[in-house]
Amino acid sequence: MSMSERTGARTGKPLIESDRVEGTDVYSPDGTSIGSIKRLMIDKVSGKVAYAVMGFGGFLGMGEEEYTVPWSKLDYDTSLGGYRTDITESQLRGSPTFYRSGDYDWSDRNRERELHDYWGVPFYWGGV
Amino acid sequence: MSMSERTGARTGKPLIESDRVEGTDVYSPDGTSIGSIKRLMIDKVSGKVAYAVMGFGGFLGMGEEEYTVPWSKLDYDTSLGGYRTDITESQLRGSPTFYRSGDYDWSDRNRERELHDYWGVPFYWGGV
Repeated sequence: MSMSERTGARTGKPLIESDRVEGTDVYSPDGTSIGSIKRLMIDKVSGKVAYAVMGFGGFLGMGEEEYTVPWSKLDYDTSLGGYRTDITESQLRGSPTFYRSGDYDWSDRNRERELHDYWGVPFYWGGV
Repeated sequence: MSMSERTGARTGKPLIESDRVEGTDVYSPDGTSIGSIKRLMIDKVSGKVAYAVMGFGGFLGMGEEEYTVPWSKLDYDTSLGGYRTDITESQLRGSPTFYRSGDYDWSDRNRERELHDYWGVPFYWGGV
């Protein structure tokens, strides 16, 4: 497999460190920073990154809210040195936030379906 | 899908936060802590966790070495609150360390095959 076929040549390195993803800015299509990635949620069985927890809004460290969005909504853009997404503020504010309740344990697949359907992306677990 | 079928019931929650994985201890079969996870290496195209970078050895913060091992070599054990592995110290010391050279970019699939063959685990990219 040539270097150009190994996707890294198009997008930089093919692998990225988790502690480098954390804190990386997320940009809207017009290049505005709309937030940053706080942490990733990893599916233990498949080893796949299922979600990114984004910090959004706030000023001088206050009032920031966290939203959990499917990882596939973010695309790494080497020219920006961050993630690009088409997510808008109104979409975020209208998104399901069931995961914010108490100590949510992510055991309800129906809730995950709801979240993926809202964002219009395929399920990371491959099934239905 | 019932709670018991959703694997989380057996191993705790089905999803784990990346910033909770970082710093988690890694235990040998006899329950001894052999190191800790420093960070994960994520494959951008598939969104899969490809490798864990383990800190091993050292004393009082000095002399610790980092080893990059396939993520599938580690199994989360809720009773330990950490990862269990069958990796031994001698296996670590004999493992390929090509990734330590300069600013290694992980663009060489042959090197990754070598690393996975050494550890005896399937390739995370599914192919050959």
